[in-house]
Amino acid sequence: MIAEIITIGDEILIGQIVDTNAVWISSQLNGIGVTVGRRVTVGDNGEEIMAALRDAQGRAQVIIVTGGLGPTKDDITKLTVARMFSCGLVRDERQHELNKGHLARRGIEFNELNAHQSDVPECCRVLHNHWGTAPGMWFDYDGGAMVFLPGVPYEMKNLMTNGVLPLLRERFTLRSVVHRTALTYGIAESVLAERIAEWEDALPSYLHLAYLPNPFHMKLRLSAYDVDAAEVRAEMEARFAELEKIIPGHIVGYDDDTLASVVARLLVERGCTLSVAESCTGGALSAGFTSMSGASDYFMGSVVSYSNDVKQRVLHVREESLMQYGAVSREVAEQMAEGVRALCGTDYALATTGIAGPTGGTAEKPVGTVWLAMATPHGVVSRKMSGGTLRTQNIERACANAIFMLYRELKGLHD
Amino acid sequence: MIAEIITIGDEILIGQIVDTNAVWISSQLNGIGVTVGRRVTVGDNGEEIMAALRDAQGRAQVIIVTGGLGPTKDDITKLTVARMFSCGLVRDERQHELNKGHLARRGIEFNELNAHQSDVPECCRVLHNHWGTAPGMWFDYDGGAMVFLPGVPYEMKNLMTNGVLPLLRERFTLRSVVHRTALTYGIAESVLAERIAEWEDALPSYLHLAYLPNPFHMKLRLSAYDVDAAEVRAEMEARFAELEKIIPGHIVGYDDDTLASVVARLLVERGCTLSVAESCTGGALSAGFTSMSGASDYFMGSVVSYSNDVKQRVLHVREESLMQYGAVSREVAEQMAEGVRALCGTDYALATTGIAGPTGGTAEKPVGTVWLAMATPHGVVSRKMSGGTLRTQNIERACANAIFMLYRELKGLHD
Repeated sequence: MIAEIITIGDEILIGQIVDTNAVWISSQLNGIGVTVGRRVTVGDNGEEIMAALRDAQGRAQVIIVTGGLGPTKDDITKLTVARMFSCGLVRDERQHELNKGHLARRGIEFNELNAHQSDVPECCRVLHNHWGTAPGMWFDYDGGAMVFLPGVPYEMKNLMTNGVLPLLRERFTLRSVVHRTALTYGIAESVLAERIAEWEDALPSYLHLAYLPNPFHMKLRLSAYDVDAAEVRAEMEARFAELEKIIPGHIVGYDDDTLASVVARLLVERGCTLSVAESCTGGALSAGFTSMSGASDYFMGSVVSYSNDVKQRVLHVREESLMQYGAVSREVAEQMAEGVRALCGTDYALATTGIAGPTGGTAEKPVGTVWLAMATPHGVVSRKMSGGTLRTQNIERACANAIFMLYRELKGLHD
Repeated sequence: MIAEIITIGDEILIGQIVDTNAVWISSQLNGIGVTVGRRVTVGDNGEEIMAALRDAQGRAQVIIVTGGLGPTKDDITKLTVARMFSCGLVRDERQHELNKGHLARRGIEFNELNAHQSDVPECCRVLHNHWGTAPGMWFDYDGGAMVFLPGVPYEMKNLMTNGVLPLLRERFTLRSVVHRTALTYGIAESVLAERIAEWEDALPSYLHLAYLPNPFHMKLRLSAYDVDAAEVRAEMEARFAELEKIIPGHIVGYDDDTLASVVARLLVERGCTLSVAESCTGGALSAGFTSMSGASDYFMGSVVSYSNDVKQRVLHVREESLMQYGAVSREVAEQMAEGVRALCGTDYALATTGIAGPTGGTAEKPVGTVWLAMATPHGVVSRKMSGGTLRTQNIERACANAIFMLYRELKGLHD
């Protein structure tokens, strides 16, 4: 079963927003054994939309369309699709009532534009939207289905989960798919590829390997289609267990794991707590932990000590260390880690101090220089890293390396 | 001049990564007057890539392809394109030398996979990659150009900026384009559309209006093509000045402004400083400010007081307030704001405390309940907001509303 995802929106084509909807839909379809063959984005233009829909019908059996549904007049999808299926628009009374209630709860006045939102082509099955005002629409056609969803992410997600995915399972025979993905850290793509070449060559032909690179980590995904799921899952686990021996310490987790989620799980399992002191990462390291549900089980708090004054007043970094070594130094990083650990009374503490850039670098400490420190029940350790000139990347890299430091400590992996 | 962007990667189609490259390329092309007509994503499959390239040639004069270039064996783009242009692969000596130096500096051993990276189709113009190991490739064909770039974002960006954009300007006559985008806050799409309908209808036909919605704000973009840029820019500014009077207080900035960048600018202009106390937002509010270059000019620091203990010990929130009203309350939010303002010695302070979810809600304080407070030289104010059940969205909304609170204070807009 091949699917194609079409996203509609001038704002996507001019690069004003990131198309996260297509990403999420892809992963959901993949999870139920539907292969996404292609993703296409077109503008808010009837002819372009029509052309993309017709093309897709030649390649895919399921076409999922998002965007182009909304109260304002640049949304023309509904008229285009009504014309395509040669039917008129009718008001869907249930959606109309939902919309009235929805807007009343948010204190927004109901107007003519909102009323049009519940108009749908007569020939579709309406997927009622309880989370917003634009209903989803499902069209059956010879051998396939075409589905239209609003572009607001949480509305789209709810309609997919509660409407589209169950209907796809009901209407089509989907092939089974098994994926297992290993998350590796601290090893470059080319080095990894060479070190695992023999292991890769020995894989049975029904296991497909893909490299999913990223600036700070790599994912290795094994996939198999139309197989006995339980058996193949066990086979994949055995293969990855072998791989762990070939690149010891580099596989940190599997599937949906992230480095931060793995560290969080290790902390919770051991009943340990964490606090953080951030200078150059400016809150991003804390936010990485607290974005995960359940963070309050181990995350006590943090201090973003952006100014030297806050480093001294709140974290008790010594003035003479700041004077002698500068804010970006081993001494200050270690005092920050020890300071926040004492302040928050935690088992572990991480600290970052560096020059995120793009300005502020010197010959001795160029942009991208970061000192990371970790305070543990047994003392404090630190390391220096160098980065590039891009602020966002330096911040992300410092966060990833700080978490990797704690990961290695918790796993007893020492250099 | 119409362009099409093709991104290659199984990892994109299965939803493992977000295609931020296409977004960035879109905005860059748009900025030099090239219209992106369509964006397409295909997998690492020679036939699919070939089909997408052929389709695109029928619609666009410029085709920009990213991804599918890298050291590992699932990358087959180069062979496909060499076949398409009927030429063989040759080693590019300059890229080869660059790669040896590049890997040596990163301490990565040079191997056979890396050597292949500098092989390119004979018939292309090589765009040398100084930031990574996969060179860009430019092919001229009858009436157009096809460009291949690696998928690693900063490599792609450097090659676009230093190679592709200058070449496009040199080879083609590009039409002029003028955009101006207003950022609005605190007004729903349907209400906005109704209130500005008259203004919209009165726009001259060469000014195109688009609504770019988002859960927390809206952008209104005016565009014009093939016009006298200076004159039209003045016209757009005058139109938006009118609009500011129609929806007073709701237009917070223009073009690349974000709510946070506007607040940052206002603080710097006035020589004022900011600190933040975060509970439910967990560092995200701070990170929003510190992600912007120059944050140290006004951002002094923050305390992420995730546990009640840290609220008391660091921010001096009173134990009796926590007992009597709970951590999610007006009293605690206000004490957090006052506490961090005193601790960091700043002019302004923002505080957040709430239930981000998905668990932790009660009948009285459901998930999404957040108290926001702001301490100023004149006292402390607070407000309650309710949200949905999605953790990420509740965090983002709380951050946006907290910054909007400070925006209104700095602009002297009071309820």
